[in-house]
Amino acid sequence: MAWDTEGTRRRLKEAATAEFAEYGLDGTTMTRIATRAGINKERLYSYYGDKNALWEVVLADELDRLAAAVSVEASEDVGEFAGAAYDFHAAHPELARLLQWEGLTREQPARAEQRAVHYRRKVDEFAKAQRDGLLDPTVDPAHLTFALIALAAWWQTVPQLAEMITGTSANDASGRISRRAFVVDAARRMANRR
Amino acid sequence: MAWDTEGTRRRLKEAATAEFAEYGLDGTTMTRIATRAGINKERLYSYYGDKNALWEVVLADELDRLAAAVSVEASEDVGEFAGAAYDFHAAHPELARLLQWEGLTREQPARAEQRAVHYRRKVDEFAKAQRDGLLDPTVDPAHLTFALIALAAWWQTVPQLAEMITGTSANDASGRISRRAFVVDAARRMANRR
Repeated sequence: MAWDTEGTRRRLKEAATAEFAEYGLDGTTMTRIATRAGINKERLYSYYGDKNALWEVVLADELDRLAAAVSVEASEDVGEFAGAAYDFHAAHPELARLLQWEGLTREQPARAEQRAVHYRRKVDEFAKAQRDGLLDPTVDPAHLTFALIALAAWWQTVPQLAEMITGTSANDASGRISRRAFVVDAARRMANRR
Repeated sequence: MAWDTEGTRRRLKEAATAEFAEYGLDGTTMTRIATRAGINKERLYSYYGDKNALWEVVLADELDRLAAAVSVEASEDVGEFAGAAYDFHAAHPELARLLQWEGLTREQPARAEQRAVHYRRKVDEFAKAQRDGLLDPTVDPAHLTFALIALAAWWQTVPQLAEMITGTSANDASGRISRRAFVVDAARRMANRR
């Protein structure tokens, strides 16, 4: 009998992503992930190792998907870069939740070195755009990178504040359009030459 | 025998703030709060009611302290407004954590109506500064308010990202100075006329 290994792995990871995003690393059990996927727990362990290893896979995968979705280079248009990141976070609220659980409960971030390398590349890209005269060179490029992520992800991070302040919920389609437009404009204001 | 009611109440609330910030509403017990304060649990209940009521008091108090600390009016200097909010969050990392726990685990935010009123006042202040020609009237004042909070609070919200991206930890004193300077400048760029 041929197992649908690929499909099984995918279902397990989707279940793990949903559970981790909802309950965090500490609040999630391997049993619940397996039950949610409808696949037995032994398979979950044999594919992904223990809960910590699975958490790292889930977070790394979401970050990879974000990086793939935000393919706009800083040097092209810092506004569209932030807009694409906003779109990803709006469509994948799991990621902002995973990052929050990580900040709230984990002492060491998952795969910190690889992520630091990835961020450094991003910062270098902004620094190069500054040297090329495309962005304002007086803005610290690391702080800028961090603040652009804030602009993009804050809506999903504290959706209750977004709703109290703007009067529209994260699921409101027209609200999303105006939020995105704001993010694009704010990113350009922060980064571009005055 | 005269009870030091004031002091007891304060110790209980400080313990509750620390426990809630660390473990969230669901992860905290009234027993642990009382133990941390070194005061018996009956007193905790008689002063503050149940855990949900205590959570609301703690969050509302922290928000009041923030509002008191950020006394700069938007119309004076939007940069210093954001800088003062940054200072508060840096000195009180509990607040960003409480807001995250609220977003992650609560269906209804605590005292939503009062907070919405407070935010509306803030938004109106920015809108007035725009009408008075002090700020750029093309920027949505509600989105601006929300984004200024992001700029101020993001560092404490995902400290692990801040460290990976900037290379300095939240506890680094010189890092704090440059982060604050960035926040002040970014706020002005976002809000001021170009």
